[in-house]
Amino acid sequence: MTDHLFRYIDEETMNQSDLNAPTWQLSERARKLTSSAIREILKVTERPEVISFAGGLPSPATFPAEEMRAASDRILRDSPAAALQYSATEGYLPLREWVAQRYSVNGAQIRASQVLITTGSQQALDLLGKVLVCPESPVLVETPTYLGALQSFSMYEPRYVQVPTDDNGLIPEALTPELTKGARLLYAQPNFQNPTGRRLPIERRRALAEFAKSAPFPVIEDDPYGALDYRGEPLPTMLSMSPDHIVHLGSFSKVLAPGLRIGYIIAPEELHFKLVQAKQATDLHTPSFTQRIVHEVVKDGFLDTHVPKIRALYRDQCEAMLGSLERYMPEGVTWNRPEGGMFIWVSLPKHIDTMKLLEAAVAQNVAFVPGGPFFANEAQHNTLRLSFVTVPPAKIDEGVARLAELIRARV
Amino acid sequence: MTDHLFRYIDEETMNQSDLNAPTWQLSERARKLTSSAIREILKVTERPEVISFAGGLPSPATFPAEEMRAASDRILRDSPAAALQYSATEGYLPLREWVAQRYSVNGAQIRASQVLITTGSQQALDLLGKVLVCPESPVLVETPTYLGALQSFSMYEPRYVQVPTDDNGLIPEALTPELTKGARLLYAQPNFQNPTGRRLPIERRRALAEFAKSAPFPVIEDDPYGALDYRGEPLPTMLSMSPDHIVHLGSFSKVLAPGLRIGYIIAPEELHFKLVQAKQATDLHTPSFTQRIVHEVVKDGFLDTHVPKIRALYRDQCEAMLGSLERYMPEGVTWNRPEGGMFIWVSLPKHIDTMKLLEAAVAQNVAFVPGGPFFANEAQHNTLRLSFVTVPPAKIDEGVARLAELIRARV
Repeated sequence: MTDHLFRYIDEETMNQSDLNAPTWQLSERARKLTSSAIREILKVTERPEVISFAGGLPSPATFPAEEMRAASDRILRDSPAAALQYSATEGYLPLREWVAQRYSVNGAQIRASQVLITTGSQQALDLLGKVLVCPESPVLVETPTYLGALQSFSMYEPRYVQVPTDDNGLIPEALTPELTKGARLLYAQPNFQNPTGRRLPIERRRALAEFAKSAPFPVIEDDPYGALDYRGEPLPTMLSMSPDHIVHLGSFSKVLAPGLRIGYIIAPEELHFKLVQAKQATDLHTPSFTQRIVHEVVKDGFLDTHVPKIRALYRDQCEAMLGSLERYMPEGVTWNRPEGGMFIWVSLPKHIDTMKLLEAAVAQNVAFVPGGPFFANEAQHNTLRLSFVTVPPAKIDEGVARLAELIRARV
Repeated sequence: MTDHLFRYIDEETMNQSDLNAPTWQLSERARKLTSSAIREILKVTERPEVISFAGGLPSPATFPAEEMRAASDRILRDSPAAALQYSATEGYLPLREWVAQRYSVNGAQIRASQVLITTGSQQALDLLGKVLVCPESPVLVETPTYLGALQSFSMYEPRYVQVPTDDNGLIPEALTPELTKGARLLYAQPNFQNPTGRRLPIERRRALAEFAKSAPFPVIEDDPYGALDYRGEPLPTMLSMSPDHIVHLGSFSKVLAPGLRIGYIIAPEELHFKLVQAKQATDLHTPSFTQRIVHEVVKDGFLDTHVPKIRALYRDQCEAMLGSLERYMPEGVTWNRPEGGMFIWVSLPKHIDTMKLLEAAVAQNVAFVPGGPFFANEAQHNTLRLSFVTVPPAKIDEGVARLAELIRARV
């Protein structure tokens, strides 16, 4: 999702100065919102000549536009009043049931009464912040973690605590009583994490799911990329291991289309009810029409044939990028080999600041996202995130070659 | 909107008790969210035999379903990738331009750079709370005021200050330095206010627009019902009088359909930019697809012929209800004669508590919303709100007759 965060803010308004402009006092949380240097630099990446690996935009080639067109037509023909009227805050019941059914695997029983449909996964993060986080309350996050989650939670002014990670992701043993004291939630992306592309191994999932059973705070399993598993061999979710103690976030953005903004939270009923109340105060409900479109498209097994096509496309693009990295990157540069998802995480020699590198790269018409902003506290400034899903293979090779040259000059 | 607030919460989950249920610490704001007694009572109003005046649901007869169907089809045929991809947080530019154009009347120049598309007007309230309100900061509201606004702002834990009103709405002279000290915002609905149906006269609009120019906080003009002016003689907005100092909220819910969840905030650029950042952290953006549908339907003047039909329908229903009130209500009961909108506000003799009356009414298969919850602080418990837009005239007469009988027994 992150490229959205960078590409679209209309920064021009920042530079206006108007003597008549009112001076109103803002909330503490709003005062902390500052314009981002990265955004400024990445604004130029919309120019067609720029090869941008910054994007987290799913390939439009994967959007099932014709299926959605047929679904829209049927819905507005057969049930316009219901599709266009105010509707339940919890979401469209048949879609909630479909989600519950889909997650009732490996012996877990998920109930529709645990499912809340959200205006994209981003809203799930906002609602969790709203319902769980007070100013200065500790929030546990991975090192690094999803930038959009930091943005959402930060509106509720937490104190972030970084949980140590390694190449396999979050280290469950690191969750000591000292580290987790007073925490309101633990936020984790076990599948092909944004930004690192890492996948949490089965043993760690078990350990974390077990930890969740006695933790005095919820473990949030954010899983937008789980279906994008290149070998089609997904690891079980933590939700399936501790269905009453894990809060699971899902999304149709990566398997259908992000523009419809349909995600969901699966949570124990007591928390679910608070989240529903918070959502009611936030936007009443997610549009009935778009929820019905999603349900209409997925209800008869469409994803079973559609998702493998997305996987194959992204796997090929990932392979292309890994090949280019092998070919061009100088010694001292390391990266991971993702088993799914949309991102590769690259580490450069310690002395190279990727924020400065980005400026040079953009001048050469190639872009990426510096790693720094993905760290809640102490950042590793020699890291960067590459997305391989938006740019075609030939361009990937050209872009990586340019980037490698810039790095070589700095090693 | 309020009937939504009552009808749809899935209360069943509240009654579940589960020994294995996790006990997680919630935020202060979430702990304050409690289940509402009214909601419990109004749950039964979904039974078909109940004549419900509780609803704020626009009549589905007014939804332009065929126009939307044609628009959806064109959009998914001609620009599926753009309609289904992540898009700008500010909203779809042509729709923002349309809104700016529509408000550039009476000499006011509104710029698209002031317009933020929101996921319904409810989200506008949430974002304003997020960006402006700190715990314990004073928020000025009308007496009574829109319940949904209280719900949104309350998540940011303000201290409400009630501004005195009379039958013409908010009294500008009451905005003394003592009353407004330290306020973060003033929230008002000048047109056919929810719940009272009152319209603010032109002189008061001028006074309030003038007040806004020097106030150290924004005056919020929430205007979901402005187009529903039965004589088609709208009063100028305060935005048109002080375009740089009024924050104006609008919505397509009452003139097209609420289920699409498309509203907007027009604000000075500096506040606009903060609102955009807050929206980004909240749900990234409102769906591109539904924004394009609205734009496609309205862009060629559709509302100019469509809105008069809605007005005529609601005016007739309003007349029907006023006639029934005249016919049946005992002495000591008073109400207003709305010039637009969806609601009539009824005052009973002081000793009648409308919350208790509601219980008796529901037993007789008629429903309304008690007035109490619309007051931020000291409530007038002898008031109630009637909506005349959902129930057909014959049923209106029957329902009002039943209600009058219950009141007569208590006068």
